[in-house]
Amino acid sequence: MTFPVIGMVGGGQLARMTHEAGIPLGVKFKLLSDAPTDSAAQVAGDVVVGDYRDLDTLRRFAQGCDVITFDHEHVPTEHLHALEADGIPVRPGPRALVHAQDKGVMRARLTEIGAPCPRHRIVSDPADVARFAAEGEGFPVVLKTVRGGYDGKGVWIVRSAADAVEPFRAGVPVLAEEKVAFARELAANVVRSPHGQAVAYPVVESIQVDGVCDTVIAPAPGLDPKLSTHAQQLALKIAEELDVIGHLAVELFEVRTGDGSGDGTKVLVNELAMRPHNSGHWTQDGAITSQFANHVRAVLDLPLGDPRPRVRWTVMANVLGGDYPDMYAAYLHCMARDPGLKIHMYGKDVKPGRKVGHVNTYGDDLADVRERASHAAGYLRGTITE
Amino acid sequence: MTFPVIGMVGGGQLARMTHEAGIPLGVKFKLLSDAPTDSAAQVAGDVVVGDYRDLDTLRRFAQGCDVITFDHEHVPTEHLHALEADGIPVRPGPRALVHAQDKGVMRARLTEIGAPCPRHRIVSDPADVARFAAEGEGFPVVLKTVRGGYDGKGVWIVRSAADAVEPFRAGVPVLAEEKVAFARELAANVVRSPHGQAVAYPVVESIQVDGVCDTVIAPAPGLDPKLSTHAQQLALKIAEELDVIGHLAVELFEVRTGDGSGDGTKVLVNELAMRPHNSGHWTQDGAITSQFANHVRAVLDLPLGDPRPRVRWTVMANVLGGDYPDMYAAYLHCMARDPGLKIHMYGKDVKPGRKVGHVNTYGDDLADVRERASHAAGYLRGTITE
Repeated sequence: MTFPVIGMVGGGQLARMTHEAGIPLGVKFKLLSDAPTDSAAQVAGDVVVGDYRDLDTLRRFAQGCDVITFDHEHVPTEHLHALEADGIPVRPGPRALVHAQDKGVMRARLTEIGAPCPRHRIVSDPADVARFAAEGEGFPVVLKTVRGGYDGKGVWIVRSAADAVEPFRAGVPVLAEEKVAFARELAANVVRSPHGQAVAYPVVESIQVDGVCDTVIAPAPGLDPKLSTHAQQLALKIAEELDVIGHLAVELFEVRTGDGSGDGTKVLVNELAMRPHNSGHWTQDGAITSQFANHVRAVLDLPLGDPRPRVRWTVMANVLGGDYPDMYAAYLHCMARDPGLKIHMYGKDVKPGRKVGHVNTYGDDLADVRERASHAAGYLRGTITE
Repeated sequence: MTFPVIGMVGGGQLARMTHEAGIPLGVKFKLLSDAPTDSAAQVAGDVVVGDYRDLDTLRRFAQGCDVITFDHEHVPTEHLHALEADGIPVRPGPRALVHAQDKGVMRARLTEIGAPCPRHRIVSDPADVARFAAEGEGFPVVLKTVRGGYDGKGVWIVRSAADAVEPFRAGVPVLAEEKVAFARELAANVVRSPHGQAVAYPVVESIQVDGVCDTVIAPAPGLDPKLSTHAQQLALKIAEELDVIGHLAVELFEVRTGDGSGDGTKVLVNELAMRPHNSGHWTQDGAITSQFANHVRAVLDLPLGDPRPRVRWTVMANVLGGDYPDMYAAYLHCMARDPGLKIHMYGKDVKPGRKVGHVNTYGDDLADVRERASHAAGYLRGTITE
């Protein structure tokens, strides 16, 4: 058999679930993990413990891998170029991945290809932030370090120039963006292979709490079918123009057009992620082919699987760590309450606010499906006790 | 977190798929495997390579496990008693498992609890086989060594006393059974927990070719609903009476009653398996909770998951090794032909006739679902080339 070896950099839950999805596909999975206790390292057989920031470590890891892919976007771009120069297929490649690593590069490129974005520009200091505000609707303004942020980290909402000192401390270029008064957040997820085959998942609604994804509803309820198709086409276009291989999540703001009196909505691109993404976890139980299986298929240039939903509604709710460290009793309770609940635990120690798992529920009645997901997530966290 | 450790004995595909199902459940999985290249050992992190026939090996393996369960029935019954005496929960326990290990014990106990069986008795030599034949409808007679057989091995169909010499050579007691003129084979699969909670999957039709399971159709087409319920109740009763913990497959013959002119059918118990079973592989893609996930939940005494089907029809077809060792090109072709095909490969080297994977297909049109499964299985084996 010549079933190939995938090398995945990063031992988080995305790698854990990618390994899970690769088992039935019969592919070999090799992991580069920071620690032997990391989420994915607990469940995979072929684990190298090492630092992805060290090129020699990456090079040794890549030996015997047919392709390298990623649990996160933190591998230095220059290391990825070095691996490519060594002849190792890197998917997504560094020329694509830089758009998910550097928000400045991402905004410039999206603007170039005509993808709708919030008003934005690189700013040099707090006074420049004030000028950026004055160029548009004024404060508040969103500031982001171009590299290193996720889940609300590296992002500030500032209400004045005096408020805008902190983001410049790290010495990383800072991107200013208008604070979009969005109606809601959406995500358009697609998967693309080196052949150029691509599939689009249904557009989903993503509900954030304190800057962290809380709930995803698939498909986005009440979304105008034309806007849905437009968002899918936009994501496919971004994947093609940026030459993304694997899963691409395009996080979107849905905003009202015109005077806001209901004459329509449009989308603006918020963020890109070039790996399996939290907004696609619903596909494990709600789609014919999960984002993880399709990511594996894409990076190996295998034909992609059907992305269509299996059921009318699927809801994903993240399980965050709460105040008590042992979730097992709550887990047992949730299984007893709802025999159709799909729990996905990451094997992580519980810390308050840390994502330690998610649940999926599905069915025909959206209110019921949402209630089941949010009850289970709340019960596991400890915010619901009955 | 106090998520428990499951120790599974045996590194075959059932362990591989149990590990896969345990990943989202967040439980720890420890494997005792004959070789580091075994199907499950390729994909699991915590693997002990050793001989399950050696009690010291089993005892060392069991340290740190919260429960011991099995990929196969071959662990000597006395070793399981020894582990239990050490205080290790063994699920299913030796008093249950002996009924899946020893066909003589199984027939005696099933008869005792009133489960319908083919006519049978232990026979001592070829002349006794002739007497057994004469007590009923005559030859042919089915002979089985009471221990050690599976997939047609350890089973003979004999047409005369002269034909019946071979089964007695091994020195293992031999069970004679009438050769049942069955209409078809069914399987009633249930899962039971130490709490006594139990769930029943839909009764499926199992189509054997050369003594090996070829295709499973869920649910069994055209099965009388009363007989279906009866078969589920029978399997639940066997699980309870034999104190089975985990997944129990009850393989059944469906036979015509009366004069065969169509006035009804009944079931007879063929075999028992106390582990995830080939007749339950369809549940991975066709049921709300797979047999593997429910086996994990049961042996940990967690509440069981919903066993109901997600779709009208699911068909499983086994992928057997064919004449060419590299299946990857065929695998790619199958994915391209059918984006909804669910392939499950076991990571095994291809040998002619060896089970190296299976495919699941599902949908509303049974003829189409069957064609897709059988085409993919045939193409992977190499018996279909277009």
